[in-house]
Amino acid sequence: MTGITMLPGGGITAPRGFRAGGAYAGVKTYGDGPRLDVGLWCPDRPAVVSAMFTRNAVVGESLRWTREIVAAERSVAAVVVNSGNANCVTGRQGAADAAALARSAAAHLGVAPEAVLVGSTGVIGRPLPMDRLGAGIAACTPTADAAGGTAFARAILTTDTRPKEAAARVETAAGIYTVGGCAKGSGMIHPDMATMFGFLATDAPVERAWLDRTLRGAVDGSFHLVDVDMDTSTCDMVVALASGAAGGEPVDDGHPAAGPLAAAITQVARALAREVARDGEGATCLLTATVTGAPDDGAARRVARTIVSSPLVKTMVTGRDPNWGRVLMAAGRAGVPFELAAVDVSLAGHAVVAAGEPLAVDLGAVSRAMGAPEVTIEVHLGGGPGQAEAWGCNMTADYVRINADYTT
Amino acid sequence: MTGITMLPGGGITAPRGFRAGGAYAGVKTYGDGPRLDVGLWCPDRPAVVSAMFTRNAVVGESLRWTREIVAAERSVAAVVVNSGNANCVTGRQGAADAAALARSAAAHLGVAPEAVLVGSTGVIGRPLPMDRLGAGIAACTPTADAAGGTAFARAILTTDTRPKEAAARVETAAGIYTVGGCAKGSGMIHPDMATMFGFLATDAPVERAWLDRTLRGAVDGSFHLVDVDMDTSTCDMVVALASGAAGGEPVDDGHPAAGPLAAAITQVARALAREVARDGEGATCLLTATVTGAPDDGAARRVARTIVSSPLVKTMVTGRDPNWGRVLMAAGRAGVPFELAAVDVSLAGHAVVAAGEPLAVDLGAVSRAMGAPEVTIEVHLGGGPGQAEAWGCNMTADYVRINADYTT
Repeated sequence: MTGITMLPGGGITAPRGFRAGGAYAGVKTYGDGPRLDVGLWCPDRPAVVSAMFTRNAVVGESLRWTREIVAAERSVAAVVVNSGNANCVTGRQGAADAAALARSAAAHLGVAPEAVLVGSTGVIGRPLPMDRLGAGIAACTPTADAAGGTAFARAILTTDTRPKEAAARVETAAGIYTVGGCAKGSGMIHPDMATMFGFLATDAPVERAWLDRTLRGAVDGSFHLVDVDMDTSTCDMVVALASGAAGGEPVDDGHPAAGPLAAAITQVARALAREVARDGEGATCLLTATVTGAPDDGAARRVARTIVSSPLVKTMVTGRDPNWGRVLMAAGRAGVPFELAAVDVSLAGHAVVAAGEPLAVDLGAVSRAMGAPEVTIEVHLGGGPGQAEAWGCNMTADYVRINADYTT
Repeated sequence: MTGITMLPGGGITAPRGFRAGGAYAGVKTYGDGPRLDVGLWCPDRPAVVSAMFTRNAVVGESLRWTREIVAAERSVAAVVVNSGNANCVTGRQGAADAAALARSAAAHLGVAPEAVLVGSTGVIGRPLPMDRLGAGIAACTPTADAAGGTAFARAILTTDTRPKEAAARVETAAGIYTVGGCAKGSGMIHPDMATMFGFLATDAPVERAWLDRTLRGAVDGSFHLVDVDMDTSTCDMVVALASGAAGGEPVDDGHPAAGPLAAAITQVARALAREVARDGEGATCLLTATVTGAPDDGAARRVARTIVSSPLVKTMVTGRDPNWGRVLMAAGRAGVPFELAAVDVSLAGHAVVAAGEPLAVDLGAVSRAMGAPEVTIEVHLGGGPGQAEAWGCNMTADYVRINADYTT
């Protein structure tokens, strides 16, 4: 008997063998006062790590530091993150600052600096206020309870309006494991202060290569389905740590827990990804595109992502305007060939196009349905087996205001 | 001695041998009252045509009609356009309506329906009001003066705030020719009611194959440099007609006018493309990205287009916020590899990054410079020979308002 149970309120400290915390270093102050801006997350013993990084040609110096540690396949003793000021285009000083952040965290926690991952997010091109960050790290006391995980989840935010956490317990023939995570979004479109962070934890013992494959699959089925540019901002990273605190044999492909554990990791990542989409800058609505009948799953993903990333679809949802032509136009420019005569579209649960013909629809009813906090757009392209889902959010005038006034 | 002189106030009737006009058919009414919504454009004698069409998988029925005529290499006797209601996703009725529009125009002008190109733009998925459109066509009297060209230029608009016309005279060793054109944009992002129209005219006699090659080059250097999705909405088309009214030998590659005439066509197309960018929905500013030092021109184009299409760059300009990290982030996600250490950036005439290092900059001065009606972003990527320019516009809260309230 295996099963996955979501654990409400759980985050990166839900699995055994992890502590986390946050502190205020004096960097991130919004209108409503100071906010946690330094986070520490540490396994009780060095953990197996896997990570994925942005494909942007411009990458931050903290990310470079972290990427080297992951590439060297070292075990990880801690993760330190600062928010409000990215370590990106910070010139020659940036590399030294990334190392200094690792050293500060290492000294505070009594571990080796080479085992400390570093993440930085916030405005680009400004030197890090290292004195304040050092003091903030020293003031941070990671704890194993849920509050510690939530403090870390808060400390990594920038324009997000709320922390994003998820956790699940998975029962397998080999034992019971816990998976937890937290994430940070970056508005509805992702470059700039951008930086999407995802942190995933499990107490399962794992083989590194298995964790690598599993993380890639989980990210493909979660964070990569949010909007369209998410995988390419300068400081994006998703980090998975496995503490092994649950004991037992390391999970690898032949292990009886491999399938259920991978499913739990993906499920936690999907929950976080949906929260990232829902909390897009200025957003009031989670937008889901479901595409079926595509030539293959990859084609379906391209169409689904193009729909949820289309500004005209996003503004249509804001206006509760059942102008479904925009959905077809977005689908049509995804680079996937299809025959209009085979296409069905439904908007917020109402069929509006069948076999390429517009249907007689009660537009008032569709408009009312579009006022829900979650709006789904379904597009069936034809007879192919490919299907996919993608998540985004609506676009409001607040999005423009937030981004026009960001640093001034 | 050859030379190109721009002709202020000129449009599609500037070259000899063309008439144009517009009428109100009762389809397109905005808050400020009725607007011309049917246009006719006709050469005095059947003209050589070349055209380019959207690559969107969903295409309108009027576009299909036109594409067939162009593919058959027929001469063109007239172009009829209606705006406010696209002929797209109009089901089986749409193809019949496209033919009926051509027949109405043909009957009115005394030409063959198979020689009449049709364009439709506006909201998708609603049947065309054929009675009103037929009456509008019958009420339209094309004239050879500038007023006729401007009436047509107005009749093709949707959310554009002003008509877009340009013309140039080119003196060549083989004679003097005139090139004129008009265009219609579709907001700053292009799907939806989308439809970018470009109409180009010359009185030069031309070989069709030469016109095909020349139009492709001109569009690549003009309309394809506006934003990023412009080439993929459902009804986009660029049509070039050559009346031959200037007389002489048809222009082909060996002809002494070939180079100057192609340059004049490109120059008119570029002037129109910049006006399309400047008049983006809600826009208050023309945004130009100039990229140099790329591996090749194609790479430079991708980077320049990614910069001008980035919502975060567009909102940054609205906020006069010299947050140039967004420029680097957009450049970095264009899929072109480069070394940050070789990159220079300038924003509204102010150098902000040199060799990858942020410069000490008077941000107040940069902010003031960003308040101009034209803002240029220059990015030098490294030592490569590739360079390109692209045009876009800023993004304001009005963009969201216009698109949230579009059909309701």
